[in-house]
Amino acid sequence: MTISLNPRRTVAQVEEGAELAPKFDESGLMPCVTSDAASGEVLMLGWMNAEALRLTLETGAAHYFSRARGALWRKGAQSGLTQHVVEARIDDDQDAIWLRVAVAGAGASCHVGYRSCFYRTIPTGPEAGAPLRFLERGKTFEPSEIYGDAPNPTSL
Amino acid sequence: MTISLNPRRTVAQVEEGAELAPKFDESGLMPCVTSDAASGEVLMLGWMNAEALRLTLETGAAHYFSRARGALWRKGAQSGLTQHVVEARIDDDQDAIWLRVAVAGAGASCHVGYRSCFYRTIPTGPEAGAPLRFLERGKTFEPSEIYGDAPNPTSL
Repeated sequence: MTISLNPRRTVAQVEEGAELAPKFDESGLMPCVTSDAASGEVLMLGWMNAEALRLTLETGAAHYFSRARGALWRKGAQSGLTQHVVEARIDDDQDAIWLRVAVAGAGASCHVGYRSCFYRTIPTGPEAGAPLRFLERGKTFEPSEIYGDAPNPTSL
Repeated sequence: MTISLNPRRTVAQVEEGAELAPKFDESGLMPCVTSDAASGEVLMLGWMNAEALRLTLETGAAHYFSRARGALWRKGAQSGLTQHVVEARIDDDQDAIWLRVAVAGAGASCHVGYRSCFYRTIPTGPEAGAPLRFLERGKTFEPSEIYGDAPNPTSL
């Protein structure tokens, strides 16, 4: 079956209905939270355009839109670290996606080489202002071995 | 201690450093994933400006910026469903936050009355195109009793 993205008619339809009626921002994108289906750890915050959403839902393999490269991208196409969608959810006003995934291969999802992109905690409360703390002891893979001299997607 | 948001000088500093050097978008906002610290369920995708991030880290209570209302907002200020930050994390390029929280009271975080804003699954793969499926059997609270006639933040 193919996905149809329905027009947004009423708040009740969007919040309480069973129709997929997503809202993309002025750049045509929506944020996507991706977590490990087994551990629950949040792996990354990605972006999807309508085509990335459609391909993700139809193929069951996570696709994103890279803002740095301005291009649609199947996660793991280069690294082999593909994300199989175990469950996809949409939020109340249908402007955000949550994917629960199983990651192939070494199980990493971060271009820096860590398992999760969220590999640092920010101290809070009485410790607010202290340095970030690294949670992962080492990298799961060495980015230069996977990506070669491709441009780093992090921009300043 | 107070939070200092450092200037972004190099990719290595941002990705591999221990300095908080967040990047907000052209609207001055960054996405924040908030999950239940105990169950791991993603509760909501919110937005923070620099002030919301600072208040969240310093007070340990989640603050967001409401795009619908154009205002800073302490989660639960009206409903009592406050979010205590158990852990805050930042991602590789420091343009997204992940909060693991403990929710007060009835434990709900969704303005529609559900526990999680992500209360519907989107069928994938062979089932792609089928109707959304509701995961929560009933609402945790009745929004009209909490919010009265305040405007619904969902926009079409």
